[in-house]
Amino acid sequence: MDPTIKDVAKKANVSIATVSRILNDKPGFSVKTKTKVLRVIEELGYQPNAIARGLVSKRTHTIGVLMPTLLDMFAARILNGIDDYAHELGSSVIVCNTDNNGQRTLKYLRVLAEKRVDGIIFVSEYLKDEYYKVMSDMKVPIVLVSTMSPDYPVPFVKVDDELASFAATEYLLKQGHRRIAMIAGSPEDPIAGVPRIKGYRAALNAEGDEEAKELIVSTQDFSYESGMMAMEKIVDHPLKVTAVFASSDELAVGAMSYANKRGIRIPEDLSIIGYDNTRLAQMSTPPLTAVGQPLYEMGNKSAEMLFSMMNTGETAESCLMPYTIEERETVTRI
Amino acid sequence: MDPTIKDVAKKANVSIATVSRILNDKPGFSVKTKTKVLRVIEELGYQPNAIARGLVSKRTHTIGVLMPTLLDMFAARILNGIDDYAHELGSSVIVCNTDNNGQRTLKYLRVLAEKRVDGIIFVSEYLKDEYYKVMSDMKVPIVLVSTMSPDYPVPFVKVDDELASFAATEYLLKQGHRRIAMIAGSPEDPIAGVPRIKGYRAALNAEGDEEAKELIVSTQDFSYESGMMAMEKIVDHPLKVTAVFASSDELAVGAMSYANKRGIRIPEDLSIIGYDNTRLAQMSTPPLTAVGQPLYEMGNKSAEMLFSMMNTGETAESCLMPYTIEERETVTRI
Repeated sequence: MDPTIKDVAKKANVSIATVSRILNDKPGFSVKTKTKVLRVIEELGYQPNAIARGLVSKRTHTIGVLMPTLLDMFAARILNGIDDYAHELGSSVIVCNTDNNGQRTLKYLRVLAEKRVDGIIFVSEYLKDEYYKVMSDMKVPIVLVSTMSPDYPVPFVKVDDELASFAATEYLLKQGHRRIAMIAGSPEDPIAGVPRIKGYRAALNAEGDEEAKELIVSTQDFSYESGMMAMEKIVDHPLKVTAVFASSDELAVGAMSYANKRGIRIPEDLSIIGYDNTRLAQMSTPPLTAVGQPLYEMGNKSAEMLFSMMNTGETAESCLMPYTIEERETVTRI
Repeated sequence: MDPTIKDVAKKANVSIATVSRILNDKPGFSVKTKTKVLRVIEELGYQPNAIARGLVSKRTHTIGVLMPTLLDMFAARILNGIDDYAHELGSSVIVCNTDNNGQRTLKYLRVLAEKRVDGIIFVSEYLKDEYYKVMSDMKVPIVLVSTMSPDYPVPFVKVDDELASFAATEYLLKQGHRRIAMIAGSPEDPIAGVPRIKGYRAALNAEGDEEAKELIVSTQDFSYESGMMAMEKIVDHPLKVTAVFASSDELAVGAMSYANKRGIRIPEDLSIIGYDNTRLAQMSTPPLTAVGQPLYEMGNKSAEMLFSMMNTGETAESCLMPYTIEERETVTRI
């Protein structure tokens, strides 16, 4: 059990009011009393609210961000949102690229602890038990972005993947498509895999249409290369789909690129919708219709929550952000 | 003038040999003598060689990387090369996104100093006087990547931009093109602007061909959006070019996208070559022929140089990396 202000008062042999007043930097105490109370606080690992904490362990005005990769424009855009918020409040952001590697993630958590960051934002990765253990020992606020934890009480900012995936599939259905394939990521991925597959299935079934057939191609990751490979399977499949829902923009662009090689025209012969709405969606030829996640705003919001936790000591409310359908040129009505 | 070992010996009232032996962790001295010498070293700011430094100011096994943006896949790939090298040697990398903003850059330099990184890698940005001043006060090794300083003795890793640009233009000339436009970045940019324009001009003139005409469109930055705008000027220009050399992959992809809108086919109607060979070049439709910079290797090499400087205390030799021409599908012979 975490030590309380009562434990501190008892061990330091002073009143609770004294501890509180010292924590709030009120005058009227000898250096000796002050030192004694602060030492007991350190010994017990008592964590007062953040205003008091500012007194005990000086703020460093830096926050740490852990990212699984910086290569996909996705994380970079979230980071922009975090950066702008933090700098606005006079703090700096240090970024650690975990490369989706558990060892590196743990190492970086230790580094951030040593560097005494005031808080941590954890982007897009599943919060493993061992990460949480290290994080909670650090006793700094944590916010998750584009991920969430079913097991731990860590606030998050994300889009509802199931709903967004439902909307993407429904959008294709409304354009008249019935044979719709999904390039799905990993069916073991509890964050970006499972819920999106659920949403896709739910939309197909909701239609109550016998013609609506499913074809799910799982991939190892969300990369362009995986999109190409998945598309090969889809093109050669007897179902002869007329539309593809890809679970990331890179998957979609890889799929388009493979279609192009095979002489399949987008959207004339095949419609495709991506997911994320990164800059890649705008830059692709033709420009990619995609489910949009408000990445910059998600980064911004996560920073807002983190600073609020640093200032109040209260856990922030998790936040579901709205998705959008960004219509460009890769989906046609049939 | 920097203090020498002599100054330390004099002020601490011991022999030079004593200072040296203490710095090298040799036995035979009282705690008092040791403390006195180390204190004088701190006071004077004496910087012994790195092995000794390891004793005086403990290594933190972290290095800092300053990047102007993470949105363009370019910096991210360099970072991969740095990361892998550093982790191999047991160090961690903390990244700061300066957003091309001078104030943020200075702020991050102070943050890295506070966090006591062992060295700094500075990516892609012009090394301004005020940056160098702060950096040299930090007394840690610095390496530049994909940039260089004409003014300060800071080692760098980069491709020779003028030669690479010459090669790109020459490649187009060899495919029979004579009216070749360049989308050039800023003519005030001493690193990625001026030398590439020089190389382009030199190649056109080297041909000794009256037909070889130049058309340079400057842009504010190296982004997709700037590529689109530049292409509009090129398409509407009376010169009627048959090929375009773009000074970044994003510029090239933006130019291709604009061409596509205007019904100009790549490469049938117009050839285009990019610069950098990021993943975007592979992902574009059609896949982009580009001058390749070995980004991962450049990152790797910069880390190697930095660690060597940390270990030996000697400035590393700057290094020019080879460029390549990555032939894909956007250039045709005419």
